[in-house]
Amino acid sequence: MDIEKAAPETSPNNLHHRHNHRDSYAASDAGDATTDATPSVEKMFSGKVVPTWRNQLTLRAFVVSLILSVLFTFIVLKLNLTTGVIPSLNVSAGLLGFFFVKTWTKFLEKFGVLKQPFTRQENTVIQTCVVASSGIAFSGGFGSYILAMSSKIAIMGDRGFQHDTKDPRLGWMIGFLFVVSFLGLFSVVPLRKIMIIDFKLIYPSGTATAHLINSFHTPKGAKLAKKQVKTLGKFFTFSFLWAFFQWFFTGGDTCGFTNFPTFGLKAFSYKFYFDFSATYVGVGMICPYLINISLLLGAILSWGIMWPLIETRKGVWYDASQTKTMHGLQGYQIFIAIAIILGDGLYNFIKVFGRTIFGLYKQFQAKDTGTILPSEHSDPDDSTSESYDDQRRTQYFLKDQIPNWVAVCGYVAIATVSIITLPHIFHSLKWYHALVMYIIAPMLAFCNAYGCGLTDWSLASTYGKLAIFVIGAWAGASQGGIVAGLAACGVMMNIVATASDLSQDFKTGYMTLASPRSMFVSQIVGTAMGCIISPSVFWLFYKAFPDIGEHNSQYKAPYASIYRSMATLGVEGFGTLPKNCLTLCLIFFAGAVAINGIRDFVGDRWARFIPIPMAMAIPFFIGGYFTIDMCVGSLILFLWQWTNKANADAFGPAVASGLICGDGIWTLPSSMLALAGIKPPLCLQVVPRLHS
Amino acid sequence: MDIEKAAPETSPNNLHHRHNHRDSYAASDAGDATTDATPSVEKMFSGKVVPTWRNQLTLRAFVVSLILSVLFTFIVLKLNLTTGVIPSLNVSAGLLGFFFVKTWTKFLEKFGVLKQPFTRQENTVIQTCVVASSGIAFSGGFGSYILAMSSKIAIMGDRGFQHDTKDPRLGWMIGFLFVVSFLGLFSVVPLRKIMIIDFKLIYPSGTATAHLINSFHTPKGAKLAKKQVKTLGKFFTFSFLWAFFQWFFTGGDTCGFTNFPTFGLKAFSYKFYFDFSATYVGVGMICPYLINISLLLGAILSWGIMWPLIETRKGVWYDASQTKTMHGLQGYQIFIAIAIILGDGLYNFIKVFGRTIFGLYKQFQAKDTGTILPSEHSDPDDSTSESYDDQRRTQYFLKDQIPNWVAVCGYVAIATVSIITLPHIFHSLKWYHALVMYIIAPMLAFCNAYGCGLTDWSLASTYGKLAIFVIGAWAGASQGGIVAGLAACGVMMNIVATASDLSQDFKTGYMTLASPRSMFVSQIVGTAMGCIISPSVFWLFYKAFPDIGEHNSQYKAPYASIYRSMATLGVEGFGTLPKNCLTLCLIFFAGAVAINGIRDFVGDRWARFIPIPMAMAIPFFIGGYFTIDMCVGSLILFLWQWTNKANADAFGPAVASGLICGDGIWTLPSSMLALAGIKPPLCLQVVPRLHS
Repeated sequence: MDIEKAAPETSPNNLHHRHNHRDSYAASDAGDATTDATPSVEKMFSGKVVPTWRNQLTLRAFVVSLILSVLFTFIVLKLNLTTGVIPSLNVSAGLLGFFFVKTWTKFLEKFGVLKQPFTRQENTVIQTCVVASSGIAFSGGFGSYILAMSSKIAIMGDRGFQHDTKDPRLGWMIGFLFVVSFLGLFSVVPLRKIMIIDFKLIYPSGTATAHLINSFHTPKGAKLAKKQVKTLGKFFTFSFLWAFFQWFFTGGDTCGFTNFPTFGLKAFSYKFYFDFSATYVGVGMICPYLINISLLLGAILSWGIMWPLIETRKGVWYDASQTKTMHGLQGYQIFIAIAIILGDGLYNFIKVFGRTIFGLYKQFQAKDTGTILPSEHSDPDDSTSESYDDQRRTQYFLKDQIPNWVAVCGYVAIATVSIITLPHIFHSLKWYHALVMYIIAPMLAFCNAYGCGLTDWSLASTYGKLAIFVIGAWAGASQGGIVAGLAACGVMMNIVATASDLSQDFKTGYMTLASPRSMFVSQIVGTAMGCIISPSVFWLFYKAFPDIGEHNSQYKAPYASIYRSMATLGVEGFGTLPKNCLTLCLIFFAGAVAINGIRDFVGDRWARFIPIPMAMAIPFFIGGYFTIDMCVGSLILFLWQWTNKANADAFGPAVASGLICGDGIWTLPSSMLALAGIKPPLCLQVVPRLHS
Repeated sequence: MDIEKAAPETSPNNLHHRHNHRDSYAASDAGDATTDATPSVEKMFSGKVVPTWRNQLTLRAFVVSLILSVLFTFIVLKLNLTTGVIPSLNVSAGLLGFFFVKTWTKFLEKFGVLKQPFTRQENTVIQTCVVASSGIAFSGGFGSYILAMSSKIAIMGDRGFQHDTKDPRLGWMIGFLFVVSFLGLFSVVPLRKIMIIDFKLIYPSGTATAHLINSFHTPKGAKLAKKQVKTLGKFFTFSFLWAFFQWFFTGGDTCGFTNFPTFGLKAFSYKFYFDFSATYVGVGMICPYLINISLLLGAILSWGIMWPLIETRKGVWYDASQTKTMHGLQGYQIFIAIAIILGDGLYNFIKVFGRTIFGLYKQFQAKDTGTILPSEHSDPDDSTSESYDDQRRTQYFLKDQIPNWVAVCGYVAIATVSIITLPHIFHSLKWYHALVMYIIAPMLAFCNAYGCGLTDWSLASTYGKLAIFVIGAWAGASQGGIVAGLAACGVMMNIVATASDLSQDFKTGYMTLASPRSMFVSQIVGTAMGCIISPSVFWLFYKAFPDIGEHNSQYKAPYASIYRSMATLGVEGFGTLPKNCLTLCLIFFAGAVAINGIRDFVGDRWARFIPIPMAMAIPFFIGGYFTIDMCVGSLILFLWQWTNKANADAFGPAVASGLICGDGIWTLPSSMLALAGIKPPLCLQVVPRLHS
């Protein structure tokens, strides 16, 4: 997935944690199906009829997808606009999708009007549609490049570029998403057989999702899922009510539990406090321990040590009157964070890209000699039951074809429309910029899909950043290079991100016998939904909370400033940085590369004690409060696992999902209240001791 | 026990709840010993040697008793000074006593220097000592009659009696307690055989404690106890840390979580809020549901309906300038509460007294005809294993005698000292007042011990209130009748309360084969400890929190005002009451009697849905905030019992004890901090919406 999107997937090592985590979950679900008695999953399901691809696409599946898409769009946007840390929500989407359709079919069954039972293929269709749709909430860049174009963010940035802006409007955002979001789909469709059947890439997330869905449709798994849904529901309710309760006390900028100086006012002024956010406690429970520790270390390093030290040089290192701008302390914060993000990104880009090339080379070499080489991390299922499971899965996977000419024509048609439309939306982005991108994009999309299959790690936002610099510099500072760069970033990210998402989905479909054709349709429907839902929800946020992106806002949207600063860097070079900032940036850039190198060098055994630079950079700009929440989540999970591991593994993700979803969905009524002009009646505040 | 002391024991019906509650706990502990396989408890212990009475009184037992006495004195005083609702702490005392000695003996055993194993007799000695000592914290009246004498409470009361005061001083309080607290002991000692062996009175609390102690000393029970202690420890730590954390935010009169308007500012101004007190959540878990519901109903009736209505008559029903005095709204609050307390008290006094006389009459009648009549609620153990258990228990109970002349001489000697000393402490209390009380007291002490044996219900504070009115009126308004009445209340309560406590202990001792002689010594040592510890701890509170007893204080000590108002009523009659107050008082007095009558009339089946007037009266003066806490505790317990009854029954009391003890012991460091002049650094407050 993506760097800002999925901290848990930030680095290859991390992957293992995540994968373990997921696997243990999946195993507890699907234990009976995969490891215990039966060696073959498909034998368990052999009695069940696989519906035709048309019958996999039911109306109820899309209705449920729509509901869940709206839910997850709220959650993803909330996360995007608060900190930019987004955990994997597949488990919650899976659980909720299963729950909704199951309730629906049970209800119909009671009245004897059920026409078609709920199958795992239909479940996969829902999952695919929801992932596609809520994926847009991330790759749409509402917390990053779109917001970065706005004049709101511009006025906080470099003084020279305060008019190179494009403010969000619902119309152009929907149009933009429609012309760029479908290209990724068409570019990987022709390659699906190579990646899934021939290369047997593992796609850890897709595989985990498939395990989850398969397990739901076994009797034991369904029973567990029911309990998990109940747990999720409980914590959803708690989290929602808690958010509702908190709302009453937020009548004022500095009011409410989110401004509670848990460790005192001094620590609060350096952004160390527990902000009572159920969301980030839940996120902390989903993210691996290493991520949470890295975040905390990053917060301590930056807000605990570096910023206070740099502050003592106020007036020397930076203009004292410019503290809150890019030319002051904020410049240090943002550019050092960017240095780390780029350093880590570059290292991993080279690594994953290298592995991709190497993997492809080996694959083709093997093909030449006539043997099919399973991918490095090949799925254990494959080896134990290769013959039957693979046979059956391959059979269904190849049954419904999507002709290559559909893919090619689709790509060319949409690209043409896009090339014509884009310059009308962003005047500084020329048709030739778009053309060049659309020529290179399919290759990058394939690389990303392949790399993601090997490592579960999507480089989408790295490609996006690359586009910022390349297109920004090409357009030039005086020609509105910033907006052009950011728009190019959006184009690139959307193509590359959907390519890897769809590949993950194909893997899920392969393992659940869902037809590639139904998957493709579902992904198209999901993407179309996302293109409308995401901008609309963002528009709701944007209108309801006019202080979005500001420093004291509930929605700080840190990546908006970071992306804008990167774009400024791209068109202007290092000239805008405050004194000594470049030196520090170089040190941190090198440090990020070095730490990643060491992590790979020492191997997994030691790497799990070495923090991840990318994660460390996240609190640099916004502070450590959410890392405290996440560490609380980690601690809860740790204690839970310590007292009852099986229970924690089975219900931990459900609790976390409940916490995240309940708090996330509260943003809907909360923005409604804000739009209606209803203000919270009270203000909870902590002030120094009263002298009475 | 006592009306303010033990809400759970306020009324006979209630008793059943409490008794059930306790029994189910005891049963889960002592299940193997009492109900399962073995019909006889004593057969289980037949292999164990019972130490001589001297060996039951070990040094370590008294060291542990001292530690626990200090702990429970803090807790009881805290409860006394905040709301006056005190649950039974026997289970926590039992668990902690067991834990401390067990740890101590294990430690010595490791080094091979253990001389004497830990026996249940020694355990009973500790329990007795701690109960005696912490009993003084209640019957010493620091939250009621002692504080009621102070000038602090006087200035809030009737203007005519603001100089009839006696401010607390450590010296006279210790002296006073020493001369009055031992009399109860000596007055029941000669009657122990009659009550325990001949009448076979049940003493529900004493029996429950004995079950608990017996269970600790079975292997299964010890294992469970260990787990319970662990649970207690966990919640103790949590509760302590939570109290510590809260402290930081209390820098100012209206600051802190205890002033958190959970349901909004309007509700807060009528004292409806959740005050985040771990103590009262724990208390709510121990008290029966009916008590908590009654408290809540009382709060709604008074602060939700009546006071707002009476407030609308401000200027008509009472002088608007006198709102916060006895002549204003506060007068209504206190006197209506007194009316209910007296109505309920009178009803139950007559009932229990009637049952006592009737019970005695039947006993003597039965004795005449030669049969021993077991008491009404006879212990099931007795019937199933009467022969062996009773035989053995009776044998040990009669082995060590306390000669009657010791008791009589002790009583006369102490009474003489007391009669000489008391008038020197309270100038308005004359020697003849004391003499009359000491002549009547033994009879009342016996009645109370007998009634308590039948119903578990001590009327100590009812006798105390009687003394207020009788001696107050006798001394007369102009002769300092208020202090005289309150002092007489103290004399009476101390004698009567210790008499019933000691009888309960004798029952416990009987059932654990502890020698009555060691029990008596332990009670004397415990009482002596209490006479020093309780006033000292109160003194610490008094010095550390100078606003004690005031309206906005953390320590409102509601019963101080209530007792003083009763004393004023006693010396002055109804003249001091504001307009219409007497009418309302009469209505509520009659209502309390009527509801009690109905409760008894309809039987237990329906009575458990009828609130208890006494409990309803408690929030009348101080408001409903602590009832909210207690209902939260009830709710937690209810949900817990609903999901896992066995677990909740076994660990509920441990959780509750942990919550109460942790928060209670925090008062020690908190008062130290206050004495050292260290003020909390922050102020948490909730104010109306800021207009920014």
